[in-house]
Amino acid sequence: MKIAIAQLNYHIGNFEGNLAKMLRAVDAARQQEADLICFSELATCGYPPRDFLEFDDFIRLARETVEKLAEAAQGIAIVVGSPSKNPRIEGKDLFNSAYFLADGQIRQVQHKTLLPTYDIFDEYRYFEPAGQWQVVEYQGKRIALTVCEDIWNIGNENPLYTVCPMDEMLDQQPDFMLNLSASPFSHTQAEERLHVLRSNVERYQLPIFYVNHCGAQTELIFDGGSLVVSPGGQVHDELPYFEECIRTYELEEVIRNGHHKPQAREKIALMHDALVLGVRDYFQKLRFRDAIVGLSGGIDSALVLVLAARALGQDHVRALLMPSQFSSGHSVTDARQLARNLGVQYDIIPIEGIYQAYERALEPHFWATEFGIAEENIQSRARGMLLMAFSNKFGNILLNTSNKSELAVGYGTLYGDMCGGLSVIGDLYKTEVVEMCRHINREEEIIPQNIIDKPPSAELRPDQKDTDSLPPYDVLDKILYEYIENRRDPDDIVQMGFSEAVVRRALRLVNINEFKRHQTAPVLRVSPKAFGMGRRMPIVGKYLA
Amino acid sequence: MKIAIAQLNYHIGNFEGNLAKMLRAVDAARQQEADLICFSELATCGYPPRDFLEFDDFIRLARETVEKLAEAAQGIAIVVGSPSKNPRIEGKDLFNSAYFLADGQIRQVQHKTLLPTYDIFDEYRYFEPAGQWQVVEYQGKRIALTVCEDIWNIGNENPLYTVCPMDEMLDQQPDFMLNLSASPFSHTQAEERLHVLRSNVERYQLPIFYVNHCGAQTELIFDGGSLVVSPGGQVHDELPYFEECIRTYELEEVIRNGHHKPQAREKIALMHDALVLGVRDYFQKLRFRDAIVGLSGGIDSALVLVLAARALGQDHVRALLMPSQFSSGHSVTDARQLARNLGVQYDIIPIEGIYQAYERALEPHFWATEFGIAEENIQSRARGMLLMAFSNKFGNILLNTSNKSELAVGYGTLYGDMCGGLSVIGDLYKTEVVEMCRHINREEEIIPQNIIDKPPSAELRPDQKDTDSLPPYDVLDKILYEYIENRRDPDDIVQMGFSEAVVRRALRLVNINEFKRHQTAPVLRVSPKAFGMGRRMPIVGKYLA
Repeated sequence: MKIAIAQLNYHIGNFEGNLAKMLRAVDAARQQEADLICFSELATCGYPPRDFLEFDDFIRLARETVEKLAEAAQGIAIVVGSPSKNPRIEGKDLFNSAYFLADGQIRQVQHKTLLPTYDIFDEYRYFEPAGQWQVVEYQGKRIALTVCEDIWNIGNENPLYTVCPMDEMLDQQPDFMLNLSASPFSHTQAEERLHVLRSNVERYQLPIFYVNHCGAQTELIFDGGSLVVSPGGQVHDELPYFEECIRTYELEEVIRNGHHKPQAREKIALMHDALVLGVRDYFQKLRFRDAIVGLSGGIDSALVLVLAARALGQDHVRALLMPSQFSSGHSVTDARQLARNLGVQYDIIPIEGIYQAYERALEPHFWATEFGIAEENIQSRARGMLLMAFSNKFGNILLNTSNKSELAVGYGTLYGDMCGGLSVIGDLYKTEVVEMCRHINREEEIIPQNIIDKPPSAELRPDQKDTDSLPPYDVLDKILYEYIENRRDPDDIVQMGFSEAVVRRALRLVNINEFKRHQTAPVLRVSPKAFGMGRRMPIVGKYLA
Repeated sequence: MKIAIAQLNYHIGNFEGNLAKMLRAVDAARQQEADLICFSELATCGYPPRDFLEFDDFIRLARETVEKLAEAAQGIAIVVGSPSKNPRIEGKDLFNSAYFLADGQIRQVQHKTLLPTYDIFDEYRYFEPAGQWQVVEYQGKRIALTVCEDIWNIGNENPLYTVCPMDEMLDQQPDFMLNLSASPFSHTQAEERLHVLRSNVERYQLPIFYVNHCGAQTELIFDGGSLVVSPGGQVHDELPYFEECIRTYELEEVIRNGHHKPQAREKIALMHDALVLGVRDYFQKLRFRDAIVGLSGGIDSALVLVLAARALGQDHVRALLMPSQFSSGHSVTDARQLARNLGVQYDIIPIEGIYQAYERALEPHFWATEFGIAEENIQSRARGMLLMAFSNKFGNILLNTSNKSELAVGYGTLYGDMCGGLSVIGDLYKTEVVEMCRHINREEEIIPQNIIDKPPSAELRPDQKDTDSLPPYDVLDKILYEYIENRRDPDDIVQMGFSEAVVRRALRLVNINEFKRHQTAPVLRVSPKAFGMGRRMPIVGKYLA
């Protein structure tokens, strides 16, 4: 039997586009003489459809997409993920299903059992878990269909669920496992995915075909990396990361064993490629073409500009340089050099006149007060407003340049440098921002070295440095990582060798700045725990605050 | 047996404060000669604790709070909600539990079975459902303990769950039901709650004591309204809305029947009281005292100013009037009159000088372009920046004044009038804003009548009216209500008698403006479907867009 797996980039709610793409893949698989083609989880409607699932009309459109695909299942079987209605009155109204289509018809439906409801996942919000498991018989083979999380209860020390759907199917003696996934990227994901697949193969002694999404849906970036693992545990093949791909395998060859040479999996390089795809898909799926970035001369905006130019093309990005009386001389020269290196159009607009207009307007009310946070923020907000004025005038989408360290401790101005439609590097700690810039410069100096080397500064008052009010980033980032990614208790972090005062202060800053993060742009997620939909914290909470 | 119910205002993560408050309530109940006092769901840590639950330290602090309460359970039993650890490796790590404390000890623990995971609820994100049910025997009575949602699978046509915990306990012949809740307000909630309680009483023929939270936790407002219902279905007592209260009941009297005169439940009055509590608690729990509001002379900011003055006191609110060349004469006079009526300090800052400074800075880049959305937004953003400058300088928290109709269709300026730490009326449609203003003016003219009567306008260009680009609000709001609250399909809304073109355009505006709502302040929730944590929509989605 020849099995094709189709790793495609879907678009949420774009049923026509998703169908057309799948029909082209069916044709391609036919040319590769496949007997079966497998798409991924909720491929008809895109993943995650979120509360669109609460509309009957949306479910009907998904069903029609499945029916049109079924018509194309002639001489080839099709496996596709789609929501389906729960006929029982009790329980949730929907299932997250894998449809098996053959001979022009819907032949069988297997629902998902394990419904991830943690981090960025909300599946129990919508779906009832499966209570029945039936392998699919096709051309003399028995296929165990599972959907994503269904196979993730194996191979981890703290299983989240009390059932394992593959356990339930085993006495039906399946010949191979077919898993439809929509599993988003993080820099640890490729390793974990392989570990989970191998754990399943080891436990069930069966080959597995794992079909993942690729492409970004706002903050979530699906990296593809679909896998075929032989019953001995060897990788038979791994599809590329961050690209669409359709490949066909002879089942007997897969069973005979794997011989795949692993792809490079360097953390910073993967994150870089993920962010480029994340920016590109955000624009393409919202039908935008052009971006704008405020270039401060600092490292964060420099990195965002490079990523934007790579994602959209240099001609679709423009930069604004907005110096104030507190900007150091090198800020403008460094920023200008970067824009020139990239071939990106830039304009310079000094903000002093605007700042003075605010000063004049506020003078009767602020007299006899000292220069402080209000005056600092006016500068940052004047820049945000100029960028938004360009955005409104010319249609360029403003990209946000905050990094994860800043977002964590609230070192940013709401409605100022926190403006923007998409946070490009909001899931990179400052130390990772530096690493990624070095990665970009590994062959030639694209980002002027001075931008990478100079001490970080917001330049909102004379001689300001980030370290005036924050610990050095190599210390801060480690503390933040333990708290955010690892959810480690304060005392445990202190035990790791950090000063108790620094730890308490850092965690307090994280918790009291939830209100700021609530109002930021969606953050492209590249770590296992990003700010945004996957991290849900109270605002009025008093814990560690 | 005498049973006390304590309807208290908890604070998320404030274990010390919550414990102290509960200990005072225990003393009060002792004075009322109660045998038993019941607090509500997750009372130790406050509700909803959200991802704080992922920290061991947080769970340990909750456990310590239970233990300290247990020490106080001398001569009186205490029932309290708190998270507890799941000893099994498989499944989620926590339960959402009701603790029964007596004789200085933890006597029994009953976990919650039905874990709401819809709208604003995320409980399956954290908790494993109960699989065992055991009534509590105390002083010769058998008590069936349930937690909130546990009793909500009865009395509705589309039950979300396939089990009913009370069904499981019935053969243990309980004498009464005790339900610990944290059920947030919406204007339909009091009716629904009573219906659900009566359905349970009818089914099980037992009296019920229902203990709810009161108080606001950022966007969620808990209204109290705790209930005691007699086995015949009559309300024996209902605690007040939006206030803390401790009352004690003789079980035999409850069984003999109810005689309660229902509280007034007029929709707009309830919503008004909810919003006042929502503002007050946001400030108190974050230890803020003072607010600032931008007064445009329009109805939205007028309503927010009244609500803020009622929540915080007139001396803790100040207003800014920021006219431009497009402001009509009456805008300033109406706004000034309102501030005077309320006794609120106000300042007037014309924005023309600031606007011109932007014009000058942008002139080299915008020359030969027409006055448009960019220029309109500069005005709105200049106002947002002045308000934020006051906020940063004097510590006043900016209250956002967007209404639900505007938020729905994106009729607002990001980083302009959409600024603010808390959206006070973001869950009121424009027509409800008008109704609430009339309600406020029912005895005397607090809000100048002209503010209520004039046609809505953003006043960002000459003679602008909201109806230039939107349908009249009485039409728009009905369409939005069917789409947002009722999740009705587009075709069904058209069938109700609206123009297809208007419906398509309105729903498209709702869907393409998700990116704006993503960056707004938390919205005080007073309807069954508010923007914010209870409505989760894709940004790059193409559905109806």
